[in-house]
Amino acid sequence: MDSDKGRRNGTYSEMCDFLRLVQSLDILHQEGGGGFEALDLPANTRHLDLYYAQCTLLDKNWQPWGIGREQAMDAIEMAAIMFGKNIDELISFPVFSCVINTNSPLQLDIPMAEGLIAMAEYGQSIIITPFTLSGAMSPVTLAGALAQQHAEAMVGIALAQTVRKGTPVLYGGFTSNVDMKTGSPAFGTPEYVQAAQASGQLARYLGLPFRSSNVTSANCPDAQAAYESSMALWGATTGQANLIMHAAGWLHGGLTASLEKLIIDAEMLQMMAAYLEPLVVNVETLALDTIKEVGPAGHFFGTTHTMERYEHAFYSPLLSNWDNYETWLERGSLNSEQRANQIWKQLLREYEQPPIDPAIDEALLDYVNRRKRNIG
Amino acid sequence: MDSDKGRRNGTYSEMCDFLRLVQSLDILHQEGGGGFEALDLPANTRHLDLYYAQCTLLDKNWQPWGIGREQAMDAIEMAAIMFGKNIDELISFPVFSCVINTNSPLQLDIPMAEGLIAMAEYGQSIIITPFTLSGAMSPVTLAGALAQQHAEAMVGIALAQTVRKGTPVLYGGFTSNVDMKTGSPAFGTPEYVQAAQASGQLARYLGLPFRSSNVTSANCPDAQAAYESSMALWGATTGQANLIMHAAGWLHGGLTASLEKLIIDAEMLQMMAAYLEPLVVNVETLALDTIKEVGPAGHFFGTTHTMERYEHAFYSPLLSNWDNYETWLERGSLNSEQRANQIWKQLLREYEQPPIDPAIDEALLDYVNRRKRNIG
Repeated sequence: MDSDKGRRNGTYSEMCDFLRLVQSLDILHQEGGGGFEALDLPANTRHLDLYYAQCTLLDKNWQPWGIGREQAMDAIEMAAIMFGKNIDELISFPVFSCVINTNSPLQLDIPMAEGLIAMAEYGQSIIITPFTLSGAMSPVTLAGALAQQHAEAMVGIALAQTVRKGTPVLYGGFTSNVDMKTGSPAFGTPEYVQAAQASGQLARYLGLPFRSSNVTSANCPDAQAAYESSMALWGATTGQANLIMHAAGWLHGGLTASLEKLIIDAEMLQMMAAYLEPLVVNVETLALDTIKEVGPAGHFFGTTHTMERYEHAFYSPLLSNWDNYETWLERGSLNSEQRANQIWKQLLREYEQPPIDPAIDEALLDYVNRRKRNIG
Repeated sequence: MDSDKGRRNGTYSEMCDFLRLVQSLDILHQEGGGGFEALDLPANTRHLDLYYAQCTLLDKNWQPWGIGREQAMDAIEMAAIMFGKNIDELISFPVFSCVINTNSPLQLDIPMAEGLIAMAEYGQSIIITPFTLSGAMSPVTLAGALAQQHAEAMVGIALAQTVRKGTPVLYGGFTSNVDMKTGSPAFGTPEYVQAAQASGQLARYLGLPFRSSNVTSANCPDAQAAYESSMALWGATTGQANLIMHAAGWLHGGLTASLEKLIIDAEMLQMMAAYLEPLVVNVETLALDTIKEVGPAGHFFGTTHTMERYEHAFYSPLLSNWDNYETWLERGSLNSEQRANQIWKQLLREYEQPPIDPAIDEALLDYVNRRKRNIG
């Protein structure tokens, strides 16, 4: 979805643009598995095109798909090519994390179990995330939904350790609630924040890193999308999440990827990161001499204390507009969705593909083409 | 400002509508001083019309203006009429809180000091709030801005105690930063959150209740308005604020009151209040028997455990829309600003004026008319 063409089926070309934007936004440390499906590609080989795009358009960590052994093994093979290793060497060299969802209640289905087993065999880290929507696939009480989440997560964790002791795992908490009038999933709710905080405690109880998410049910990148995402991000932050999945671009319970929301989320994530920088308190930052120097009715703009620090004193926004009203009108009275639209287009224009060894690129393409022929 | 007529000068009639909405939204516990200025009324008697509207359109606590002794005394006189007391009896009967801002740096101007003194004489509580924008009226370092805020607040607090020992006071923290490129104030920033949390600590250090705010620099009720307000609200909440000023309806650094933002904020406040309700963990909410009863691949919709609780299980939104995309399209694909516009209109249609003793109403009107003649 974007403001120009609305909601539509995703294509490979657009998915590559989405990856280019993920690459361009430094606040995103890990690419999360393509953002959306490239529906113009055959379903049974689509993952190969995704992995090729992830290998060549990004120089950051990316997530493979783990729905069935084939998808998982293709990711492992291609990662091995990327890093100049054979797949057995990856066992002691985790290069990505693979999300494994339970099929709640109380099921880990065969394709997900196969993906988990393959990843565990080859030493890749696994994010076990039960899909426990309170009121639908888990009890209508949050404590019950969390109890079920914990049980389901522990089954996945135990299976991973059974396959290969020491397999790196993350505890995924995705508990939210449904709207009991319609059965629709709700995200970024007060219950979601409580569940994220409790999930962080449960993860730490097991001594595991915690995966949370940035989620919303909104259908367009409006105020609701922002306040639901903000609630989710504060749930993740105060829950001390180690990984925030769906960190940018989610709309409509994950059924839509939005290019404007991607920019809005990047801004919110950057603000959260800036907030987490410790406030420095010392003689220089307390600035009592400067306060005395300026005195009553003065201002601080021209002081040495200000001049020495003003360039990097405060968080500088990506998207937020702080113009006064008149200037904002003169510049077209653009709302944040419209400004986000301009920003992602500019980022795409400025995108530079990371360099890749031509031999590796060729080997990746050979692998993809060979596998496509095999799958047929 | 509203979506229908845009930004414009405020009128008394519209200010009364704003008060009616404040009355209608239960999450707002205190009316904050009119929301905006009624520019169609003479400046020197405008406060009397505001107080009359506050007395008669609300049955909740409201804030008087304290810019000069006259404004303050008129509020005290009219509050005494409302409560059937004489003004000396109010000394031991605080009925409202009055915001006193310092004129930073390091000044408490004469009108504000007069307002403070009058309120302290008559036992009304005072919210001392320095206006310390880091980089402009206070040091460019947040620690320095907070040091200055604390010093200025303590002066106001000390003056209140000098006038009348035991005057109830709140510690107001409003420290934010300016955009160093333009000098524009910025709100809901990462620095704002840090300042709110530190201000809460400083207030508790003095043993005083803490006033924080819900603020944004956005010029329209878009995603930016929501994420900046959400940051501010999380700053207030994690800073353990006792009072959140400007809780609903603020836009553009407080220079604009927005009817749509009022509804968006009410939703965010309600969500925060719901989040703060403790998560109940006991045998019944853990629901292990129900999880066993439903078993793998089942669902929880029809269980007794769900049926007994579904009506009040989760927070029910005021504004958020959780429709699936197709339903959302069918219903007009309204964004949150458009839905908020519908909601405030519905609230105004449904508004009921609280009953008032006709003798009190008459006495209030007599007072207002007499004072208007005196002021001339």
